[in-house]
Amino acid sequence: MKNGITHLYIPGPTNVPDRVRRAMNVPMQDQRSPDMPDLTLGLFRDLKTAFRNGSGRVFMFPSSGTGTWEAAIQNTLSPGDKVLMARFGQFSGLWVEMAKRLGLDVEAVEVEWGKGVPLDAYERIIAADAAHEIRGVFVTHNETATGVTSDIAGVRRLLDAHGHPALLFVDGVSSIASIDFRQDEWGVDLAVAGSQKGFMLPAGLSFLSVSEKALAANRDNRPKMARSYFGFAEQIAMNDQGYFPYTPPTQFFHGLRVSLDMLFEEGLENVFARHHRLAEGVRRGIAGLGLKLVAAGPEWYSDTVSAITVPEGVDANQVLRIAYERYRTSFGGGLARLNGKVFRIGHLGDLNEVMCLGALAAAEIALCDAGAKIVPGAGVAAANAYYREALAKQRDDGQAAA
Amino acid sequence: MKNGITHLYIPGPTNVPDRVRRAMNVPMQDQRSPDMPDLTLGLFRDLKTAFRNGSGRVFMFPSSGTGTWEAAIQNTLSPGDKVLMARFGQFSGLWVEMAKRLGLDVEAVEVEWGKGVPLDAYERIIAADAAHEIRGVFVTHNETATGVTSDIAGVRRLLDAHGHPALLFVDGVSSIASIDFRQDEWGVDLAVAGSQKGFMLPAGLSFLSVSEKALAANRDNRPKMARSYFGFAEQIAMNDQGYFPYTPPTQFFHGLRVSLDMLFEEGLENVFARHHRLAEGVRRGIAGLGLKLVAAGPEWYSDTVSAITVPEGVDANQVLRIAYERYRTSFGGGLARLNGKVFRIGHLGDLNEVMCLGALAAAEIALCDAGAKIVPGAGVAAANAYYREALAKQRDDGQAAA
Amino acid sequence: MKNGITHLYIPGPTNVPDRVRRAMNVPMQDQRSPDMPDLTLGLFRDLKTAFRNGSGRVFMFPSSGTGTWEAAIQNTLSPGDKVLMARFGQFSGLWVEMAKRLGLDVEAVEVEWGKGVPLDAYERIIAADAAHEIRGVFVTHNETATGVTSDIAGVRRLLDAHGHPALLFVDGVSSIASIDFRQDEWGVDLAVAGSQKGFMLPAGLSFLSVSEKALAANRDNRPKMARSYFGFAEQIAMNDQGYFPYTPPTQFFHGLRVSLDMLFEEGLENVFARHHRLAEGVRRGIAGLGLKLVAAGPEWYSDTVSAITVPEGVDANQVLRIAYERYRTSFGGGLARLNGKVFRIGHLGDLNEVMCLGALAAAEIALCDAGAKIVPGAGVAAANAYYREALAKQRDDGQAAA
Amino acid sequence: MKNGITHLYIPGPTNVPDRVRRAMNVPMQDQRSPDMPDLTLGLFRDLKTAFRNGSGRVFMFPSSGTGTWEAAIQNTLSPGDKVLMARFGQFSGLWVEMAKRLGLDVEAVEVEWGKGVPLDAYERIIAADAAHEIRGVFVTHNETATGVTSDIAGVRRLLDAHGHPALLFVDGVSSIASIDFRQDEWGVDLAVAGSQKGFMLPAGLSFLSVSEKALAANRDNRPKMARSYFGFAEQIAMNDQGYFPYTPPTQFFHGLRVSLDMLFEEGLENVFARHHRLAEGVRRGIAGLGLKLVAAGPEWYSDTVSAITVPEGVDANQVLRIAYERYRTSFGGGLARLNGKVFRIGHLGDLNEVMCLGALAAAEIALCDAGAKIVPGAGVAAANAYYREALAKQRDDGQAAA
Repeated sequence: MKNGITHLYIPGPTNVPDRVRRAMNVPMQDQRSPDMPDLTLGLFRDLKTAFRNGSGRVFMFPSSGTGTWEAAIQNTLSPGDKVLMARFGQFSGLWVEMAKRLGLDVEAVEVEWGKGVPLDAYERIIAADAAHEIRGVFVTHNETATGVTSDIAGVRRLLDAHGHPALLFVDGVSSIASIDFRQDEWGVDLAVAGSQKGFMLPAGLSFLSVSEKALAANRDNRPKMARSYFGFAEQIAMNDQGYFPYTPPTQFFHGLRVSLDMLFEEGLENVFARHHRLAEGVRRGIAGLGLKLVAAGPEWYSDTVSAITVPEGVDANQVLRIAYERYRTSFGGGLARLNGKVFRIGHLGDLNEVMCLGALAAAEIALCDAGAKIVPGAGVAAANAYYREALAKQRDDGQAAA
Repeated sequence: MKNGITHLYIPGPTNVPDRVRRAMNVPMQDQRSPDMPDLTLGLFRDLKTAFRNGSGRVFMFPSSGTGTWEAAIQNTLSPGDKVLMARFGQFSGLWVEMAKRLGLDVEAVEVEWGKGVPLDAYERIIAADAAHEIRGVFVTHNETATGVTSDIAGVRRLLDAHGHPALLFVDGVSSIASIDFRQDEWGVDLAVAGSQKGFMLPAGLSFLSVSEKALAANRDNRPKMARSYFGFAEQIAMNDQGYFPYTPPTQFFHGLRVSLDMLFEEGLENVFARHHRLAEGVRRGIAGLGLKLVAAGPEWYSDTVSAITVPEGVDANQVLRIAYERYRTSFGGGLARLNGKVFRIGHLGDLNEVMCLGALAAAEIALCDAGAKIVPGAGVAAANAYYREALAKQRDDGQAAA
Repeated sequence: MKNGITHLYIPGPTNVPDRVRRAMNVPMQDQRSPDMPDLTLGLFRDLKTAFRNGSGRVFMFPSSGTGTWEAAIQNTLSPGDKVLMARFGQFSGLWVEMAKRLGLDVEAVEVEWGKGVPLDAYERIIAADAAHEIRGVFVTHNETATGVTSDIAGVRRLLDAHGHPALLFVDGVSSIASIDFRQDEWGVDLAVAGSQKGFMLPAGLSFLSVSEKALAANRDNRPKMARSYFGFAEQIAMNDQGYFPYTPPTQFFHGLRVSLDMLFEEGLENVFARHHRLAEGVRRGIAGLGLKLVAAGPEWYSDTVSAITVPEGVDANQVLRIAYERYRTSFGGGLARLNGKVFRIGHLGDLNEVMCLGALAAAEIALCDAGAKIVPGAGVAAANAYYREALAKQRDDGQAAA
Repeated sequence: MKNGITHLYIPGPTNVPDRVRRAMNVPMQDQRSPDMPDLTLGLFRDLKTAFRNGSGRVFMFPSSGTGTWEAAIQNTLSPGDKVLMARFGQFSGLWVEMAKRLGLDVEAVEVEWGKGVPLDAYERIIAADAAHEIRGVFVTHNETATGVTSDIAGVRRLLDAHGHPALLFVDGVSSIASIDFRQDEWGVDLAVAGSQKGFMLPAGLSFLSVSEKALAANRDNRPKMARSYFGFAEQIAMNDQGYFPYTPPTQFFHGLRVSLDMLFEEGLENVFARHHRLAEGVRRGIAGLGLKLVAAGPEWYSDTVSAITVPEGVDANQVLRIAYERYRTSFGGGLARLNGKVFRIGHLGDLNEVMCLGALAAAEIALCDAGAKIVPGAGVAAANAYYREALAKQRDDGQAAA
């Protein structure tokens, strides 16, 4: 039976707002028409605002976020360059694999899944690299597989403390435009994001926001990796006029125009606060059901996705299957070593409280069917209490401010 | 803040399935083109199936359901004709007012709100009408204001028992295509429905399904009311060729094609069973919260809408306002004498279990905010239990049958 | 084969702009929600501007324009009232039939098809009606069947000259928002329009713009026709708050918001000028092909539709069939007595020069296939010359003004 | 003024059929859901049919066609490999530049623009390469800048004649699904296509159809270029289950489902015949206006795009600007050395005769405004004559066959 909406609570692609869907449903147009820059130059400008990137620039590539991981590397590093990375989940792990495949000399710190970037280990390694052989330091801001957010500012601090010149690469695919991100302030050189998460668009467009320093690295004399599609130079030459070196997906530009408008209308700070509130409600609900998060502690909690360990004896994959087949609800699965033990609730993008209550209610019923001994309603009740309290506080703060 | 979807749990317009929305988003076309009948004749045929009207015909009017109330009257009755009606809610009451405005001599039985068609009173009046002065007997199948479903078959039985020839008029706007309705079997002469309820379309198209007897009444020698827009004769002349006497809204036809396909793919019996299951879960949830329905007893329960009395001291309008403004959830309000005392949950059309759990969760949080002393989560938990049990039974029945 | 777009050159439904289609593709919403008036009150206000109706009001009915013909009559006239009408085409003729069906005492002046409102005959009759028995004077502003526009101001002048108090009813379905129309200045009491013509929306919504005098007539003591769906009083009571007495098609309101925005962004005067320019180009093209219009002279030419007489020996219906089946182009057919002799090109709504050149090219090729001895390219060439000249003049005027 | 549709006659992005646009306007969904393969496996299968690739496989990359150029190279060649290419227009030239940038040792034959692949020169070079140092032979099937189609089968013949084992790379971005293409028969090893041309989708998805031999080359022991995003192995591992190694743009899959359905419903042979007919009509029209094509002779004529030389003294860029700004018509511009001398009419994808007549009419009026001494209507007339004759022949053939 396929009645009613499919409830989508995965950590991306996220629910595309109707307003964005409408905006994208346009006839094709000439990507070289004289009025195209009216649209595109505004997007480049506003993307910089979304990344809090004042001095650098943002590229838009027709690709998934994975392509932009590659763009970041190809344009600034040479084959054989040494880089520092950490592996604490499926996606940070995949970036390590890519870096190796592209010929980098990767020092990958292994971290217990449930924690994020290991500041201590990073500091040790950076401190020891007096020769500055490490060309790039990589961090996955939000590890989507475990629901863990890392401390980017902390990495910047340790690099600065040691006067280390390495470029700072950040995977912000499941964080940027949902969680606080400050490219300039945190000294991020290459920040990767995708259309299908906080930007509330379908998958297919990705963003690479780069600092002046990254651009300089791209232009310096060191031999870069072979590249063409993802090359900066060709993009820059055309982007500055509002055009592109190959056919861009103009329908995405119309959608992005609206999603940026929506983010700014709400206000980025409010977007972040909303994500925190919605996420915290989900976490309270999970706790109310007596379930544990994969994230090892509050300092690691992600405001965009929660990875939830199912009780002993319950098969997380059965929870997922039941949720999808009986209750038309998509949750994220447990990836790699978490397979069968974990399901994930994505709570990012175009979302509100009742959607989160619905997600908890769906989790409750699927868990019950899968044999979990939980108290139905307990999750919804805990979230209800938190949302009421948080919104009341927000209203009070609003009145106090007025 | 306008984040996420607006949760729509009113008894119409209902949530339009994406598949229907897509189908309606078509360029305009010539309503007189030679291939138009390929589309329209199939609609006329399949609407008859949806109404279980084997021998009569169905009209499609560009109007709201209210217009079709008028069409039913104008085409078959004469000014001054005596009709029997009952008033047990806002909508049955409005039909009475219309009948009076159109010049009918209305005998309107007043019924306690919470009950439906008064079979006893109707039988008394019909029995007393030996001269057969009553030309039409009217019933609101599903009173949307109170969440009450009436016994149409019972009205047919009493008419037959007394050999009374009156035409049987049924308002099925919020029942047909959601709740069991059998035009032929129940001897309904004029059945009114609208696009924006069980047919899962936007508002703007309405249906009038008529029996052979109603068509004969339209053609007989008695002077009919003045009419033109809603006239049968002009429609019949054109409809038989697949065309219309004035510009029809062809975009609706494309949507209706899909909504009928969806209803038949699911199977009407399954559609009705699903509505019952979803409704019963909502009712269990309401009971779980310790709240009462307006419907006076299970025999009156509507499977498309529940009207819920808020606890003493709570303002139902505040519940509605809070649900809408804080939680982006639209419930139906209490109409007329129920204003401020009642809110309504529409549970019809393109709906599934998690949507109903979400509706209950939204009701819980709005009720809490409005000061109701309820146990949050208790509604969701009760519905959870019922849905699990009902779906398990359905699976068992499916396996037994296989 | 169904490749490419279907070229739609009928006099309505017209081509719906993509921007309007997008705006209409919305989820359903609660028609009683507190923010609904934000949308609807602006529509009521702006419709008045579109009709140039300063003091009266505009009703929106979920119906075709035919329904609003009926609304105009039912709300202001009594059964048996004497009215003056003229019959000079299919649509003016249908209005006469409706008036009779609704019980009016119609004096219908027969006019040669190809001309419009007969000012002389009207004046004679009005002058003779010293007793003011005539309650309503009806004019079809633009007769869609013949491509003839009538002189509404002239009718007003003769009524004023004779101090005659009859209400002035105007069918502006295929003129308003495309051709100059001035309700206040011309003293029009009831002006009918539909969504699917100059308002560039799908069919399904219609407008009735009424003067203060018409509203007073509605409220006076004379018995009105039986009515309910189309009743003014119920609409007024709700409309003033931004609501409706029955479920309105809210998706149309979103589309109307955009179509009004588009009309005002272009400027109504510019809209009218564009329609004139596009129409004149089509007429030049038709003349270039050696074909004649049904309109009896330039004073009758319609800027929204041209009815074209095919050469002797050619079957106009074959032209239509060939255009549709071989060339995916919809033209309007010859109606009633013009059947087989005439085809019509609709040139109204969201249209530009190249669309009109395409319409002429399609007419040329279909005419050739149907055996007409025309010079292919001659129509396009004549229109080309006119458009170039007219646009050059427009540019010059623009520069002179600047 | 922005009235009416924008007429899009560029060689891609092409006009997306309404049916495809509707299909793509879907809510997001979980790319890892169990029912995803129901959709994707059918796409992989049917893409093979569209490429006439019986034994190999087709990859779908979220990228423009340019990305897939890169994918073809990275997966099968080693840095420093020698390849044979030809440069006879902007796009064949860009592929040469990419190959160099990716580190290939390119032998690029320079060819007069207006001609295509130089079979003689290729044969000379291939014959001389007894050592089989040339690893890849590249051909641009349809050079979009000049409107020239090359003889792929001829390249295969010469490779076979000399028993040369080089991989055959074909850029079919603006040919495949519009012009006859036979991967198996012609022994094409890597064929590149994009969504936004013959596949009638928006830009953003690209296809790489590979032979068994190309797959073997990918797997052999020679070191391949560094790659990750465009890597075959990761795609193969997931594609075989109907999934992808990174988030795919699922909305494109729904659109592709429909565009493939449309291609097969029409029949690929009929699609090619239609493109030929439409293109030939445009060429007749151009000749009728006394203008010349860039293509050096009929053997080079492209059925998807015509590059047209403007008369001496006329600025082609002015023609483009006038067409766009005054007449809302997008033509393609003259690229690189053709800038200012040439404009291009794209005639591929979802197109019919009247659209082509409209394109010619638009070209006529823009040329006139730009000062070209042409006879308006002469282009439309010549195309009219051709289309009538060609369609009559098609009807005759159809009857003869029946």
